[in-house]
Amino acid sequence: MSKKKSFLRSPCAIANSLDILGDRWSLLVVRDLLQGKQTYTELAESREHIPTNILADRLKRLEAAGIISRNEYQRRPTRYVYALTPKGAELRDVLRAMVAWGTKHIPGTLVMTQRPKN
Amino acid sequence: MSKKKSFLRSPCAIANSLDILGDRWSLLVVRDLLQGKQTYTELAESREHIPTNILADRLKRLEAAGIISRNEYQRRPTRYVYALTPKGAELRDVLRAMVAWGTKHIPGTLVMTQRPKN
Repeated sequence: MSKKKSFLRSPCAIANSLDILGDRWSLLVVRDLLQGKQTYTELAESREHIPTNILADRLKRLEAAGIISRNEYQRRPTRYVYALTPKGAELRDVLRAMVAWGTKHIPGTLVMTQRPKN
Repeated sequence: MSKKKSFLRSPCAIANSLDILGDRWSLLVVRDLLQGKQTYTELAESREHIPTNILADRLKRLEAAGIISRNEYQRRPTRYVYALTPKGAELRDVLRAMVAWGTKHIPGTLVMTQRPKN
């Protein structure tokens, strides 16, 4: 089935990236997954205290956008591990640029390299 | 007056960058200024059709964050030109990374190099 490409706002790569990632939380979830977090509980424990309803929403949206994948690792209760897809992992460069900008221009900010406890 | 540094969410450079830029519009305004747009009218004419109340709000917020500067160029009625500060211009690298990611991973998206009419 061929379908005419339609964009929410324009064909601009930046506008379309922001339609997926343009909020205060999505890229923090990507940051945490890049740093090795895998479970909902680990993601919820981050220092920014993401509200759990927002975390659940962002995980769904990132999965729908092909940025993360979700795999069941336990039943009763069902639990999932989350991981970046190759598409998601390549957001690394966006985050690196943001870290470089932030640490240079927002006094006191840091590169946070928190890793999950093993 | 010495003041203890306080962050909205955490000292993370990404979180603090997103506190300023984490929405669907701010980086599009930065994109347009990087491409040479200067006036409110030019910014309002972009292909994404930014609602004027949102444009006015984002210009104020970006100015407050030291990312853009505003200079009066006409009186009665008062009109301003907007320009990126050096801090704002360095968001170029964040946008470049986003363009690279978007054009690779979101089918049909483009590098939009619209320039204002002279």
